[in-house]
Amino acid sequence: MPVHAGICGATGAVGQRLIQLLEPHPEFEIAAVTASESSAGKRYRDAAKWRINAPIPERVGELTVRKTEPDEIPDDVDIIFSSLPSTVGKTVEPELCKQGYIVSSNSSNARTDPDVPLTVPEVNAQHLELLEIQREKRDWEGALVKNPNCSTITMVPPLAALEDAVGLERITVSTLQAVSGAGYSGVTSMEIIDNAIPHIGGEERKMETESRKLLGSYDGTGVEWLDARVEASCNRIPTIDGHLENVWVDTVEDVTVEAVKKAMRTYPPLDLYSSPEQLVHVFTDPDRPQPRLDRDRENGMAVAVGGIQETAGGLQFNCLAHNTMRGAAGASVLNGELLLEQGYL
Amino acid sequence: MPVHAGICGATGAVGQRLIQLLEPHPEFEIAAVTASESSAGKRYRDAAKWRINAPIPERVGELTVRKTEPDEIPDDVDIIFSSLPSTVGKTVEPELCKQGYIVSSNSSNARTDPDVPLTVPEVNAQHLELLEIQREKRDWEGALVKNPNCSTITMVPPLAALEDAVGLERITVSTLQAVSGAGYSGVTSMEIIDNAIPHIGGEERKMETESRKLLGSYDGTGVEWLDARVEASCNRIPTIDGHLENVWVDTVEDVTVEAVKKAMRTYPPLDLYSSPEQLVHVFTDPDRPQPRLDRDRENGMAVAVGGIQETAGGLQFNCLAHNTMRGAAGASVLNGELLLEQGYL
Amino acid sequence: MPVHAGICGATGAVGQRLIQLLEPHPEFEIAAVTASESSAGKRYRDAAKWRINAPIPERVGELTVRKTEPDEIPDDVDIIFSSLPSTVGKTVEPELCKQGYIVSSNSSNARTDPDVPLTVPEVNAQHLELLEIQREKRDWEGALVKNPNCSTITMVPPLAALEDAVGLERITVSTLQAVSGAGYSGVTSMEIIDNAIPHIGGEERKMETESRKLLGSYDGTGVEWLDARVEASCNRIPTIDGHLENVWVDTVEDVTVEAVKKAMRTYPPLDLYSSPEQLVHVFTDPDRPQPRLDRDRENGMAVAVGGIQETAGGLQFNCLAHNTMRGAAGASVLNGELLLEQGYL
Amino acid sequence: MPVHAGICGATGAVGQRLIQLLEPHPEFEIAAVTASESSAGKRYRDAAKWRINAPIPERVGELTVRKTEPDEIPDDVDIIFSSLPSTVGKTVEPELCKQGYIVSSNSSNARTDPDVPLTVPEVNAQHLELLEIQREKRDWEGALVKNPNCSTITMVPPLAALEDAVGLERITVSTLQAVSGAGYSGVTSMEIIDNAIPHIGGEERKMETESRKLLGSYDGTGVEWLDARVEASCNRIPTIDGHLENVWVDTVEDVTVEAVKKAMRTYPPLDLYSSPEQLVHVFTDPDRPQPRLDRDRENGMAVAVGGIQETAGGLQFNCLAHNTMRGAAGASVLNGELLLEQGYL
Repeated sequence: MPVHAGICGATGAVGQRLIQLLEPHPEFEIAAVTASESSAGKRYRDAAKWRINAPIPERVGELTVRKTEPDEIPDDVDIIFSSLPSTVGKTVEPELCKQGYIVSSNSSNARTDPDVPLTVPEVNAQHLELLEIQREKRDWEGALVKNPNCSTITMVPPLAALEDAVGLERITVSTLQAVSGAGYSGVTSMEIIDNAIPHIGGEERKMETESRKLLGSYDGTGVEWLDARVEASCNRIPTIDGHLENVWVDTVEDVTVEAVKKAMRTYPPLDLYSSPEQLVHVFTDPDRPQPRLDRDRENGMAVAVGGIQETAGGLQFNCLAHNTMRGAAGASVLNGELLLEQGYL
Repeated sequence: MPVHAGICGATGAVGQRLIQLLEPHPEFEIAAVTASESSAGKRYRDAAKWRINAPIPERVGELTVRKTEPDEIPDDVDIIFSSLPSTVGKTVEPELCKQGYIVSSNSSNARTDPDVPLTVPEVNAQHLELLEIQREKRDWEGALVKNPNCSTITMVPPLAALEDAVGLERITVSTLQAVSGAGYSGVTSMEIIDNAIPHIGGEERKMETESRKLLGSYDGTGVEWLDARVEASCNRIPTIDGHLENVWVDTVEDVTVEAVKKAMRTYPPLDLYSSPEQLVHVFTDPDRPQPRLDRDRENGMAVAVGGIQETAGGLQFNCLAHNTMRGAAGASVLNGELLLEQGYL
Repeated sequence: MPVHAGICGATGAVGQRLIQLLEPHPEFEIAAVTASESSAGKRYRDAAKWRINAPIPERVGELTVRKTEPDEIPDDVDIIFSSLPSTVGKTVEPELCKQGYIVSSNSSNARTDPDVPLTVPEVNAQHLELLEIQREKRDWEGALVKNPNCSTITMVPPLAALEDAVGLERITVSTLQAVSGAGYSGVTSMEIIDNAIPHIGGEERKMETESRKLLGSYDGTGVEWLDARVEASCNRIPTIDGHLENVWVDTVEDVTVEAVKKAMRTYPPLDLYSSPEQLVHVFTDPDRPQPRLDRDRENGMAVAVGGIQETAGGLQFNCLAHNTMRGAAGASVLNGELLLEQGYL
Repeated sequence: MPVHAGICGATGAVGQRLIQLLEPHPEFEIAAVTASESSAGKRYRDAAKWRINAPIPERVGELTVRKTEPDEIPDDVDIIFSSLPSTVGKTVEPELCKQGYIVSSNSSNARTDPDVPLTVPEVNAQHLELLEIQREKRDWEGALVKNPNCSTITMVPPLAALEDAVGLERITVSTLQAVSGAGYSGVTSMEIIDNAIPHIGGEERKMETESRKLLGSYDGTGVEWLDARVEASCNRIPTIDGHLENVWVDTVEDVTVEAVKKAMRTYPPLDLYSSPEQLVHVFTDPDRPQPRLDRDRENGMAVAVGGIQETAGGLQFNCLAHNTMRGAAGASVLNGELLLEQGYL
């Protein structure tokens, strides 16, 4: 029997992707959808400006949207997928956890809290053990798990393969990010047609901190962050979906392109329902990966890497992931699947 | 009396910009235009697919296009502006120099030859002294001067200000380049709409070598290249004009943002006809510079810088220049003006 | 001595263009700028998100933004250029007129009121005589003049030439409109990248009514609208500026392409300051006009026409105008110049 | 056992779509792929610049590309899907038919020949009976069947529903066409970013003729074309896939919006393998259909209609179809399925 799931922030860009992923999901069943006050009480079909290029799932379209408040969630809901604005998530998510709900959240609040697991299941599933500490410290029956920012997720799998193989000292990353990363109305057309914006408020800092936590090690009492220097510069460009990134790494040990390709290609996948068969797809054509051509690999859950070259201090490469699938909704769902597999649900 | 100028490769994207700049220029007069065999003999108006958003200058439209061969250039031409494909420039430019023409070239051939000045007039006008060596060694009456690749020019003025102020050790640069940099047919629409391409063949290498030559010092016998590590990653994005770049530098000495801003803002301009009043425009809004909004500053001849921040090893910043103006046609014209001022014409 | 001008709605996309046009204008001097309550009291530089690709004029940047209320306008202002949202214009503009201000408005309210002149000066300057009726009926010292919607203006000059030459019976028009027509935040990037929207709320109706009023005749007591059937379909596409339109007309008399070209090319221009030297630019290349290449002709104040062909019932053609220049801010300024020339100021 | 299929012109944009559709197809098996001389002899994987956002099918990638010549086609091939340039198709297709091959062609040559069926299976399958006449007249063992131009296909299904219901007198259509319709290199990025092109050479005429043939009636000796006036204006816009069209029709009988919706929604589908469950999807939201959101309905084989309104002479509506699926490769495959069902294979 599927686990009953609630979606908080269900009308936004990531919320729509959550619906697209969860409606046909064999392990979860969408039992409740919430949104802001102005949508509450409407049918989901009428409340959401549906913008995915497939029709709205029939059953979900008929659900009544609830207010995003803990008391509005039905009792038989076991897990909540949250894509709330961080200012809302900050207040609502802890209340939900207090009331006993398991929350898999894509919101940016609390991601670097010491007792909150920030997980990409294939990379650092062990960090989930933080939940013991979290529950004890916060006196929660529920639990709060976060997935990282979309631009962070994109580079973490190849970096994890490198950290395992040769150690990381310094990471410099420049991003070319799609407009969907800012939500449906985040970037106006006049801002971005024939243009690029060399700054995304807060994003650089998220990449610099979240990546170090994700690549850190859990020692039984907490996560020791990766001891490496990370510097990011984030750019918005006129693409719909798919974040592309140029990455330079100084490595601890020497490295060859062939060894790197092998380390990435053989990075162990999980067999969770949404996990791709191969986590990192490595291209040899230096023109790839490209957002429009490669973002949909393995239902948008793979990370694509190309342009691997040796440098004086280590190597450089490019990577790409679908920012609202692997980078947001898919990441939350995958965390939900991990929580289920590990018995939290 | 204006100097008679020829334009080789006059029908291409850069050739059209050369015409746009030279036709109203007080120091030069367009006396001849050349193109490939298929255009030769036609009126320029009929040979060129004019793509600038201003009408084709009346007089130039009526000129007969000549074949790109040294014998076809009229004797009264004194300077030739070349935007030939490098494979053609490689053969034709030396022949023109042998016959006595002064050639200001935007083509990529010969840029790193030890006896060929690669100049951005505001930055390294002194390198022009290489012409003595060039003429002696090659037994030329004419002379060959190059301007760098458009993506190199964009970052060199701010880097020159930094090199003067605090010394450069390591430069990492990621570019977001406009489609016009590849010429009129260089990037198809299917390649770039809703997309980005993380590689531009040869461009990374040009940035890594040309920047070190440009920032090097002339010691009376040749140019000693800047002793710094330069690593570039070049991306094509869906913008028409204007290359945007994210730059990280490790500096020799410590540096503050305020000192950097001052060094850039006070970088000495030239008073050549096409040189901007202020070479580097420094923005404080972190969202700027942006290609569509800032590429046209000072008739497309200024370089815009923003997002200056301190890092562990030095600093990072973003820069932008109009790739077919400051980065190509305008660069060649400026070199022509320098040659004129220094008495080579 | 220049006429003192106020700009209502000065921070929006059209307001910014008004500033760009009026600041260097020899006949007007910007004396006051107004915006919504949230901007009032700030320096214009801080209140406006300036998005024109030229720096903000120094003097205007320092002006203090006033609330959009009649009492806030200084007494020495003689003319007000209004680009208010129509819901605001509906209330504020009549009050301004009552207080004695001459208002040249781009807002859509009141455009089809029988006693309000809707003018494109080159086409129907005579309609200004409606002001006598307006002042008498409304007991105003001031006066209200409107320019039409940007998509209407684009097709009206070539249609006026045709109406004069052969008479119009039926007009069918399909538009490809730029995003700036919806204001700075009117179209999100997720709506329009790799996309088009086949409907612009209210726009089709505006084209159908305003064009008939504009092409109508003033008979001393009012404007008799053109007796023709007009049907429009309006589309938004991913262009920044410039509305392109496909037009079919059934004409009363027979017509030849050559006669049409002549009628359009010789359509009499005005010698107002902002009026183009030639109102209608006729292209013979069927690929033209194109938004990016042709919108800036004559400082964005010309209308470009191409693709003229005979059909069974008359002819078809394509036309283009810069929607925020000829189609909005420039149209309002031109109406201001006409009011000045005719002694209303 | 599947029918052996050859693909002529297999490396182009439509050829790639043919491979995408035929490789998993239960009724056909790709047995040979041909392309121009420069590709012949290479593995398909090396010859094609694969640009579909899914990996190249493994088996097809290993096929050796053959020259596009009748003698190069293996004997066991039964049907050939042709997406050759029309200049090549004109010569090669008749030779193939002479040698006994059944050819389902997307090329524009011969579409209006009186003895060549131009079919959209759901609309005019009966026209296939022309093959009797064709074989007799041309003395062919094989047969040549055409699908129409992509912009024609888009409007024909809704027009067919209208013709059946109320009769058509006059059709005016304006198109907003995607760049993929011009093939991989047909439109450069400099032509189309922030731009639109109001003319597509030959396309207007194709729409005007092909639609009348398609909607004509077969009387046992030939097709009597629809007696209606059709006028088209074709525009290229910056979309990747999906042609959007504004259509006005003058109808013979009166018509209501509700009756039209019903006629379109109930237009009888076929049960061929690639035929959509519902041929015409009717939207009530006037903002739809939109290319990016609606082109993929029913695997890109449905036609979407919206904005239906009554007019003085009949009605207007907007329609959309995926131009390389329903409009090209899918159309050819569907014709192949029809040929198979009717016993020609």
